[in-house]
Amino acid sequence: MSQPRYDVAGIGNAIVDVLARTEDDVLAKLDVHKGAMMLIDEPRAEAIYAAMSQTIEMSGGSAANTIVGCGMLGLKGAFLGKVKDDQLGASFGHGIKAAGVHFPTALATDGPATARSFILVTPDGERTMNTYLGAAQNLAPEDVDAETIANAGVTYLEGYLWDPPAAKQAFLKAATIAHGAGRSVALTLSDSFCVDRYRDEFLGLMRDKVVDIVFANESELKSLYQTADFATALDALRAEVRLAVVTRSENGALAAEGANLVTAPAYPVERVVDTTGAGDLFAAGFLAGYARGLGHEMSLRLGALCAAEIISHMGARPEADLKALAAENGFSL
Amino acid sequence: MSQPRYDVAGIGNAIVDVLARTEDDVLAKLDVHKGAMMLIDEPRAEAIYAAMSQTIEMSGGSAANTIVGCGMLGLKGAFLGKVKDDQLGASFGHGIKAAGVHFPTALATDGPATARSFILVTPDGERTMNTYLGAAQNLAPEDVDAETIANAGVTYLEGYLWDPPAAKQAFLKAATIAHGAGRSVALTLSDSFCVDRYRDEFLGLMRDKVVDIVFANESELKSLYQTADFATALDALRAEVRLAVVTRSENGALAAEGANLVTAPAYPVERVVDTTGAGDLFAAGFLAGYARGLGHEMSLRLGALCAAEIISHMGARPEADLKALAAENGFSL
Repeated sequence: MSQPRYDVAGIGNAIVDVLARTEDDVLAKLDVHKGAMMLIDEPRAEAIYAAMSQTIEMSGGSAANTIVGCGMLGLKGAFLGKVKDDQLGASFGHGIKAAGVHFPTALATDGPATARSFILVTPDGERTMNTYLGAAQNLAPEDVDAETIANAGVTYLEGYLWDPPAAKQAFLKAATIAHGAGRSVALTLSDSFCVDRYRDEFLGLMRDKVVDIVFANESELKSLYQTADFATALDALRAEVRLAVVTRSENGALAAEGANLVTAPAYPVERVVDTTGAGDLFAAGFLAGYARGLGHEMSLRLGALCAAEIISHMGARPEADLKALAAENGFSL
Repeated sequence: MSQPRYDVAGIGNAIVDVLARTEDDVLAKLDVHKGAMMLIDEPRAEAIYAAMSQTIEMSGGSAANTIVGCGMLGLKGAFLGKVKDDQLGASFGHGIKAAGVHFPTALATDGPATARSFILVTPDGERTMNTYLGAAQNLAPEDVDAETIANAGVTYLEGYLWDPPAAKQAFLKAATIAHGAGRSVALTLSDSFCVDRYRDEFLGLMRDKVVDIVFANESELKSLYQTADFATALDALRAEVRLAVVTRSENGALAAEGANLVTAPAYPVERVVDTTGAGDLFAAGFLAGYARGLGHEMSLRLGALCAAEIISHMGARPEADLKALAAENGFSL
C-alpha cells in the first residue's frame, strides 16, 4: 500500500448555509423540530426564508466543513460534492479552495441551484436546519473520482448522503474503491433523525465492514441502537467497528478501538453562540490528530478545541486560523 | 406639509459584503490601506477574494445598513439602490424586506453582477473594505421614485454615492424632490478617503443647503475642513448645517443644532469583533430617536447602543432583535 496523497477525502452534500438568529416562538410557528435537520422543497424554503431576519450566508455541508477544518489544520484534503455553476456554488468552491482542499467534482451547468440550508439559531445557541438539497442531490457515482479516493488515507462519508438516492450509490462506490486500495472508510451518523430514517442500512454498513470508523454523538448512538442507555449503545458500537469516536457535548468525547477506550473533556467556551458545525469541526480535529499520529487522547482534545472555536461564533466554518490556534494550545501538527 | 408615509428613505450603493478575518500582514501583501474603503475592478476583486480564508456573505451597503436598522427599530423605511437579478441580489433584497423596508428599485436584468465589498477584518476588529460596485453603479435618476422621496420625513444619502456618476445625479434629484416636499435631507460623509475625493463638492452641498443634516465621524470631519483640530472642524460644520451629528468611536458622540450641543458616551462592549457598519447603525439609532422625538441626547444614546450591537459580531446587519434590545435598555420607540 503506497503512501496516501491525501490524508482525508470527504464526500458530502455541498451546501451553503443561510443563518439567522431566531426566537424560539418562530420555530413553533414554522412547525420545525428544534435541533433537527429537515429536508425541504422550494416552496417550504421560501416560507422559512421569509420568516428569517438579517441572514448570514456561509459555506457549509457536514463533510465539507470537516474537510475544510482538516485543510486549515494542515492536512492534505479532498472533497467531492455537487454544486451548480451559480453565485452560491462559486462561494462554496471558494471556501473549499481557501482551505487548500482538492475539489475535483464538476459543477452542474443545469438543473436545480446550489443547495441551501436555512438555519435558525435560537438564543440558547441551538441550530435547527432546513435543507433544500438542490444540485447536491445530483452527486452521482460518476462523480466519485477513483484516483482521489484510492489515494486518500481515510475516506470520510456523511450519513446525510443516504437521503439523495444517487449520492448513496456514490457513497458505496467510494467505500469499495477505498477498501480496494487498502484505505479506511469513516462514517459520521449526521443526526439522530437521519439515523432514524436509515437505522438498518447504517447498521448493515457497519456489520458488512463497509465502514471502519464511526463518528457519532450521544443521541445518534442511542437512536442507532434504540436504547436510552449510553453504555449499552457504546458497547454495541464498539463490537461492530474498528474505531468508534463519540461526542457528548459539554461532557467531552471518547474514542474506542478494540479494548482501548480513552476520554477527553470538552474545551470551555465563554458563550455558545451557534452550535452549527460543532460535530463537523470536532471530527476535523480528531482526524487531523489521527492522521498525524497524535494518539486518541490528543486527537480527541484537538477535536474539542476545534468544536469550541466553531460554537463561539455564527456559522460552521472557522473564523480563526485553526492551525495557529492548535499551535497556541500545544498541538504539534 | 402632509404627514410623511416613511420616516426615512435611504439611497445608497446596494452591496453584499464578503467578510473574513485576516492577519495584518495580509493587508500589507495586498497593498490595501487599513480602515479605508477602496473601489476595485474585477481582476482586483478576484485577487483579494483569493487571499481570503473562509468567508461570510451578508448584505451590506452603508445607507442600506442604516435603513435596515431603522426598520428593525420600528420605523417606516424605504431604500433605493440597484442590484442585479442574481443570487446575491436576491439575498440583498431579502435583508431589506426582512426589516420591513419598502424597496421599489427595479432589479437590473443585464450588465454587471450585484455589488460586493470584500472586507478584511483584522484581529483589532478594524475593517478594510474593497468594493466592486457592479450593478450598484447603475443607479440612475430614473430610479429615484419621486413618490417615495416626497413622502419620507428624512431622505438619507451616503457620500459613497458620489463615486458612480449616475448615482450622483440620482442623489441630487432626490434632494430636490425632498426639499420640494418640505422634507429634510441628510448626508453621511461615508469615510475620510471619500471626503478627500469630493471635499469641495460636499462643502458645496452644505453651503448650497442641498443637505440639512450631516453625519460624520471625527476623521471625516477633520478631513472635510483639512484641520487636525476637532473643535475648529466642528465649529465650521455647525455654521453650515442645521444639524450636525458626529461620532468619536469610544469617546461617544455629539449632536449640534444651532446653539444647542449635546453629547453622549459610547456603550461599553466586551470585545470589538468587527467595526463594519458601526457608523451606519449609529445613524440608524439616532434617526430612530429623532423620528420618534426622543431628543438629541437620547437619540445619540440609542445610536451608541445600535453601534455597540453591530461591532460585537461579524457583519453590518444586526444579529439581535434591535427593537427588543432598545426596549431592554429603556428606550420607548
